[in-house]
Amino acid sequence: MAFRTSPTNLTRLIVRPTTWQSLPNNVRHYSAPMDGSIPAAKQKYIPTSGTYPKGFLVSGTHVGVKPTNKSTPDLAFLASETPCAAAAVFTKNKFQAAPVTVSREMLKRRKNTGVRSVIINSGCANAVTGKGGLEDAEKMGAEADRCFDLPSDGKGGSTIVMSTGVIGQRLPIQKILHKIPSAYDSLGSSHDHWLATARAICTTDTFPKLVSRTFSLPSSPSIEYRMAGMTKGAGMIHPNMATLLGMIVTDAPVAPSLLPSLLTNAVNKSFNSISIDGDTSTNDTVALLANGAAGGQEITSDTSVDYASFQKTLSEFATDLAKLVVRDGEGATKFVTIRVTESPSEVGARKIASTIAKSPLVKTALYGKDANWGRILCATGYSQISEPGMPETEVSEIVPEKTSVSFIPSDGSPELKLLVNGEPESVDETRAAEILEHEDLEILIKLGGGQEEAVVWTCDFSHEYVTINGDYRT
Amino acid sequence: MAFRTSPTNLTRLIVRPTTWQSLPNNVRHYSAPMDGSIPAAKQKYIPTSGTYPKGFLVSGTHVGVKPTNKSTPDLAFLASETPCAAAAVFTKNKFQAAPVTVSREMLKRRKNTGVRSVIINSGCANAVTGKGGLEDAEKMGAEADRCFDLPSDGKGGSTIVMSTGVIGQRLPIQKILHKIPSAYDSLGSSHDHWLATARAICTTDTFPKLVSRTFSLPSSPSIEYRMAGMTKGAGMIHPNMATLLGMIVTDAPVAPSLLPSLLTNAVNKSFNSISIDGDTSTNDTVALLANGAAGGQEITSDTSVDYASFQKTLSEFATDLAKLVVRDGEGATKFVTIRVTESPSEVGARKIASTIAKSPLVKTALYGKDANWGRILCATGYSQISEPGMPETEVSEIVPEKTSVSFIPSDGSPELKLLVNGEPESVDETRAAEILEHEDLEILIKLGGGQEEAVVWTCDFSHEYVTINGDYRT
Repeated sequence: MAFRTSPTNLTRLIVRPTTWQSLPNNVRHYSAPMDGSIPAAKQKYIPTSGTYPKGFLVSGTHVGVKPTNKSTPDLAFLASETPCAAAAVFTKNKFQAAPVTVSREMLKRRKNTGVRSVIINSGCANAVTGKGGLEDAEKMGAEADRCFDLPSDGKGGSTIVMSTGVIGQRLPIQKILHKIPSAYDSLGSSHDHWLATARAICTTDTFPKLVSRTFSLPSSPSIEYRMAGMTKGAGMIHPNMATLLGMIVTDAPVAPSLLPSLLTNAVNKSFNSISIDGDTSTNDTVALLANGAAGGQEITSDTSVDYASFQKTLSEFATDLAKLVVRDGEGATKFVTIRVTESPSEVGARKIASTIAKSPLVKTALYGKDANWGRILCATGYSQISEPGMPETEVSEIVPEKTSVSFIPSDGSPELKLLVNGEPESVDETRAAEILEHEDLEILIKLGGGQEEAVVWTCDFSHEYVTINGDYRT
Repeated sequence: MAFRTSPTNLTRLIVRPTTWQSLPNNVRHYSAPMDGSIPAAKQKYIPTSGTYPKGFLVSGTHVGVKPTNKSTPDLAFLASETPCAAAAVFTKNKFQAAPVTVSREMLKRRKNTGVRSVIINSGCANAVTGKGGLEDAEKMGAEADRCFDLPSDGKGGSTIVMSTGVIGQRLPIQKILHKIPSAYDSLGSSHDHWLATARAICTTDTFPKLVSRTFSLPSSPSIEYRMAGMTKGAGMIHPNMATLLGMIVTDAPVAPSLLPSLLTNAVNKSFNSISIDGDTSTNDTVALLANGAAGGQEITSDTSVDYASFQKTLSEFATDLAKLVVRDGEGATKFVTIRVTESPSEVGARKIASTIAKSPLVKTALYGKDANWGRILCATGYSQISEPGMPETEVSEIVPEKTSVSFIPSDGSPELKLLVNGEPESVDETRAAEILEHEDLEILIKLGGGQEEAVVWTCDFSHEYVTINGDYRT
């Protein structure tokens, strides 16, 4: 045991979700939600218990990164009792925040091994902060490392650093460093610890996003493995430039060299398949840590049945987490699954689905509960448009007279056909209105030209989105 | 003179703009604006006189394509007294409306010669209407052709057909065909004729968009040539799927074979450099007609000084028209010029500018009058992002530590530097607020890596955009 303080020496539980009050659905806070502010409609997404992986300890601590934040946890600390395997997927934005650079280099230097902890602050993204910002991110990691009384293994830091919040401002680094030891002292493994930690990474989120599950692997059917994860919302908001962060941990034993591909595969089907407003931030990071604390046979080959089984579990898990981000999309009133099937290529299907998901016209129509298939078709039609001045691209995926569009109701009732093989259906508007009254909706586009498919989850575009994102800094 | 009826035999002027009343800026009609509904802030964009090309006659006539439209002109007819050269640029959307197909084939068959007229209806896009829709578009063209007592030249129709309005519905073709003869009878060349015609193509536009000018060519300095054009708004709106249509006519003599490249070049710098919501419709069409009625030496070579001079005039003219579309962007309160300079490539600069123009986060910040350069930088950084699962793209245009962002005030006062060589400036928020109070703003992004540049014009994203586009069909 390498902890300076026993993690069970907890003196306080930071928040108790059962005491959070409900508020009207349209209340959103511009920082981590304050106590008592979970919208009623979102309470169902907050777990009241969980099964958390062995050997991981977490805490959510108040620092006050934003001076206006007087009490909400804004520093999340996750520690593994033993050095563990870790991988991360980072934003491809060309303006990468300092913690992205620092964490990427750390994982590369360590070859995905020997990671001890993850330290995350909300309230400030430490993005576009120059050399000083890089130093701050390194200091955050080093201070977390110092909590573990381990001799250096000569590979430098062992902490993944993430930040989320407003861009272009330096971190109040002294305040953060000062609180890291107490964040360490507060580590624990209870459900409330996990929930407080998930809460500490929130910015414009209206609820903490935490998921846990158990699973087994074919080679060790008697061992109960566990996976837990948390994420925070996409959709970038001022004064916070909120960004997508995610962290998934498991006590299953996985060889470090396999983690990057496992995580990349999972992220492509989950976090890379959601869209709130199409903006990709400077800070987006999803990390995966596996400490093997539950024992059993290590997954060492990407052709093993254990690997395939773990990949499936991880991808499903990441999808569950990613969907929570869409559920909490800024101003969202709808959760929309866009499924493009019968495509000659998966890439083409995905491009069409993501183009529909990003179209302001489709999103406002969904907000207006309008069965406006014309806009869906229109977005489909320009999904692979060439740049101005360039010739038209050949798009084998789209053949107008083979294209069909339907709404799949979330209540299990029959689909509502809007377009069949390029011919408009006479739409029963009453039925369409019924379907669109539900929060959930699936839009199914059949291309009639192949067997590949892609799914993207998105939300609608509401007045509240404009209010949130048009709000002037105060 | 091949007109059946003298175009001077006009019995009525359809509208008089001087009698249009002003209404509050936030009033928008969901069809062509009704009499008396031009917002006060937009009246300045409506010309009170014009210089119109010789040999072109126009009319705007009420058909009632939408049953709710009881009096607003919704059929535009433009005729040339003599067969003329014509070219058009069409949408690249894979779901192309019937008039796009019909007009494209007509121009191809005619090799850009012998075009007599343009017929345009608003209120219904005739898009995704199958074979019946194609027949309707052909009938519209044929009925316009029948107005001219000319023997067939064996090349079929000679009319460009355009439609704009709701998608997926058939045209009330009999009503339209029935009114084409009276639309022909109403042809005229007065300013009021031109304005009524510009009005007839409107859907969600709050004001008609009409521009005219004179120019000369180096080889014939004594001849006054004229150019006139009209356009209707981008931004697709329900119940109308509004689309961008444009028509530019000139009495200068230009060889038919040169028109396509002249128009394409002009459109790339104008209509392809504006963005309201990033959606590219099924109907977008811009046509150019040149009848040579003013005489002088025909432009026959693309290396001549006349060609270069005409290209410059045409590009500027198209830009003036395109900017009017942005001025009337759905819900727009801002007119924003996004200029990306010092780029190694024009293509890269354009991609960055258009990505910024499309970002909902940038657009809502502009609406909120917020100097949020973080969002501008963020959009810059993901402008050339690779698809999920693909490796990061090499983007030579973007070097964070060479990137600068400024606001250029529209009142001629000094620029406000937000980011200089990747380092955030300490922004004077009072000054930023002053600059953002103006309707017009230029965002300047200097990449510090070359000499190419690109400009995109766009507007902000307001509550009213959501209201307009989330409004349920009635």
